[in-house]
Amino acid sequence: MQKNKPDVNHLTPDQFRQLGYQTIDLIADYMENIESYPVRSQVNPGEIYRSFPQHPPVKGKPYDEVLNDVKSVIIPGLTHWQSPSFYAYFPSHASGPSILGDLLSSGFGIQGMLWSTSPACTEIETLVVDWMVQICGLPRKFHSSQSGGGVIQDSASSATLCAAIAAREKILKANPDATLSDLTAYITDQTHSSGEKGLKIAGFRNDQVRKIRVDENFRMDVDDLTHCIEQDLSRNRIPTFICATIGTTSSLAIDPIPEIAKLANNSNIWLHVDAAYSGSAAVCPEHRYMFDGLENADSYCFNPHKWLLTNFDCDIFYVANKDELVSALTFTPEYLRNKESSAGTVFDYSGWQISLGRRFRSLKLWCVIHHYGIEGLQAHIRSHIKLAERFTVWIEESDNFELFQPTSLNLVCFRHRSGNEKSQKILEVLNDSGKIFLTHTVLNDQYVIRFVPGAMRTQMRHIEAAWEQIQQAARS
Amino acid sequence: MQKNKPDVNHLTPDQFRQLGYQTIDLIADYMENIESYPVRSQVNPGEIYRSFPQHPPVKGKPYDEVLNDVKSVIIPGLTHWQSPSFYAYFPSHASGPSILGDLLSSGFGIQGMLWSTSPACTEIETLVVDWMVQICGLPRKFHSSQSGGGVIQDSASSATLCAAIAAREKILKANPDATLSDLTAYITDQTHSSGEKGLKIAGFRNDQVRKIRVDENFRMDVDDLTHCIEQDLSRNRIPTFICATIGTTSSLAIDPIPEIAKLANNSNIWLHVDAAYSGSAAVCPEHRYMFDGLENADSYCFNPHKWLLTNFDCDIFYVANKDELVSALTFTPEYLRNKESSAGTVFDYSGWQISLGRRFRSLKLWCVIHHYGIEGLQAHIRSHIKLAERFTVWIEESDNFELFQPTSLNLVCFRHRSGNEKSQKILEVLNDSGKIFLTHTVLNDQYVIRFVPGAMRTQMRHIEAAWEQIQQAARS
Repeated sequence: MQKNKPDVNHLTPDQFRQLGYQTIDLIADYMENIESYPVRSQVNPGEIYRSFPQHPPVKGKPYDEVLNDVKSVIIPGLTHWQSPSFYAYFPSHASGPSILGDLLSSGFGIQGMLWSTSPACTEIETLVVDWMVQICGLPRKFHSSQSGGGVIQDSASSATLCAAIAAREKILKANPDATLSDLTAYITDQTHSSGEKGLKIAGFRNDQVRKIRVDENFRMDVDDLTHCIEQDLSRNRIPTFICATIGTTSSLAIDPIPEIAKLANNSNIWLHVDAAYSGSAAVCPEHRYMFDGLENADSYCFNPHKWLLTNFDCDIFYVANKDELVSALTFTPEYLRNKESSAGTVFDYSGWQISLGRRFRSLKLWCVIHHYGIEGLQAHIRSHIKLAERFTVWIEESDNFELFQPTSLNLVCFRHRSGNEKSQKILEVLNDSGKIFLTHTVLNDQYVIRFVPGAMRTQMRHIEAAWEQIQQAARS
Repeated sequence: MQKNKPDVNHLTPDQFRQLGYQTIDLIADYMENIESYPVRSQVNPGEIYRSFPQHPPVKGKPYDEVLNDVKSVIIPGLTHWQSPSFYAYFPSHASGPSILGDLLSSGFGIQGMLWSTSPACTEIETLVVDWMVQICGLPRKFHSSQSGGGVIQDSASSATLCAAIAAREKILKANPDATLSDLTAYITDQTHSSGEKGLKIAGFRNDQVRKIRVDENFRMDVDDLTHCIEQDLSRNRIPTFICATIGTTSSLAIDPIPEIAKLANNSNIWLHVDAAYSGSAAVCPEHRYMFDGLENADSYCFNPHKWLLTNFDCDIFYVANKDELVSALTFTPEYLRNKESSAGTVFDYSGWQISLGRRFRSLKLWCVIHHYGIEGLQAHIRSHIKLAERFTVWIEESDNFELFQPTSLNLVCFRHRSGNEKSQKILEVLNDSGKIFLTHTVLNDQYVIRFVPGAMRTQMRHIEAAWEQIQQAARS
């Protein structure tokens, strides 16, 4: 009478419950102990790969053993982005509510490619990206009830690519005799690498991607932009796409969006604004001046998965005119047709992104917003900015170090007064120690150490210890 | 003495533990009760969006209340892809071990863009994609120790796009005088919509994407392919890319890969093979004949997130020559430079994909392989094929229904003998009932019902009940 017993070793709901508790315990312990790990993994290339048999297991093994491997091999192979002593790159938050929202998404295991394949996946997404328009004081046109709308992408890379595709299609439609090789796009050498990568993927060749000069503050030079656009027009090329940045990766430079937008609007060029990191600061009204001019942009993105307590992947991408995006990215074969899509009364978000398939990504952001509330999100951003202010004072008062530029938000760019070689050496010593982890950039041929107090649990005592470490490394 | 107390309401590890247990309980209960829900969500457009306030919460609210909303509003808004009575599209598995592997990934919250940003993320990925070469009996050249290698993408859509970009760059490099508009690509009208979408994103215009005729079994017609390639060559165009399919979405048709590969290799055309769904069947040696010719393909992908017990997103993408892929997709700004990358001794998977950022996606697949073992994966695939065989016999013996074509793997394509209108009506009645969920396609102007017994927990009793429902709907 084994008829209904499955012959495959699936977990029963009760087995799942028990192993689920164990997994939650492992993560809670990881959070508890996170300060005990070297921040940057200390393993050597190939070490982890070689820890496992080169042949996959023929028979299954108990999950206990799998968890033991996680503890003994995988955790030592992590660079601990959630460590309060992680000051590298930009942070990538994994807050408790977000982890649990993501767990719900995994547990439901639904596909959100069409409204009909799980209405909640689409509508919660619309809800949270609309909420975010209010939370961040963004232009009303990005709200789904208006001409525009938002969608969650995996990353700003994908958002920029989608914006470039929509711009390309819009221009080619308006200029039926033009070909892709007639189009030009504009970035700077401070634009995130995904800008250039996205344009290349979209078929723009090197000579079609103009790198506009930056000013002394690493902001796009509007005169040079004007000049390049005029030059391209005079050569019968069609200026198509500008990728401007609010908060560059190297130094949080802010391109002059109002002037760029004016130029873009006058010349019918698509303006995409990338605020991947700094966009989260807009939850605080006192930082919204940074976003001036956004009301004249064609698209905009920022990453709650960086600084807004939400697990990767969660980039929010807004467009001013959703039809332009959807018409560029919608391909509907027969096997996906359904009543609601045909009636046009719903959003099918697969037509707003590169891939067809999609996770229930909004659930984690929905949990984050509910747990923290707007006030909690604001307090969170402010706490990091306060830490950066304090650290900035220490650098300013130091005999050995100097600020490379005034601190913006929570990125402190500094260097040793002895120059590049010493600064680089200090960084290596610090990162090899495992006690803190920082990364660098190069600006105007100067080696610059970037210090970003932005990990979720970073507090005053951590940056005090970090400053101690940095001074010590300078002395060594 | 509140100095070290965070002023933001983060969960403590213990709070996370308690709420984590509650979330695990909710998922375990969901698994337990999944047969009680209507398979296709019964909500109306806008219903869920309007269930929530249009203004985001200013203050946070207890997670209990958030979970209550999940139960009362979100679950009714799901189409239950994990229901054993889900026979629509292709399945999208969320097995217990996979959910827990994904939970670990969320909990660690690391970024895998570079080897150095978490070595375990890169090396476990290399390990599992290498294991999968062995598990599926794939060509040795796809193993990372050879010229090629594999990487996890979010979807087959992205894999096809990456393949098209690599092909495009390879050809443009070899033909410095050519422009993108000289290149041509080849698909059929049975190729997944992501093939056409990927090519359009990569900058191929309509007239550069040739739709090759299919034969009576919906397979790419090699004579027509030969003809089109010759025609394009005679017009000084450069045949660049073929996207062939093993197991099309509509009917699991298998393009004649050996013949296509011969043609592609002789003409220096990149052959990408998409086996998004059927690729999982290769875990069973008895199905490997379907993959003949793959040893001469340039790239290949399949989706463990469909039929191999692994949560979305998990597409495995192999290339025969990793340098061709990496050189097309690697853009390294200063702020990402590090010792190991510069030494070239490690893989930086961000250069194998569209986006820079990436999750620790391999962890869920690693958990799945360990839990089930090769034998478990094989038993799982075989159990579904047995169900499809049984269902096929019922259709064959039926007076009212007929097979549209011989059953392949676990896709049964059938229709009512009275024709399109009746078949469509039956589908609507069934889906509206909420008892089972199926989808359709149209082939040779015939409306075809697709029945895919592929959900994780589908057993004989479920397809018996489904067949009962189908017969009843036909009588109504």
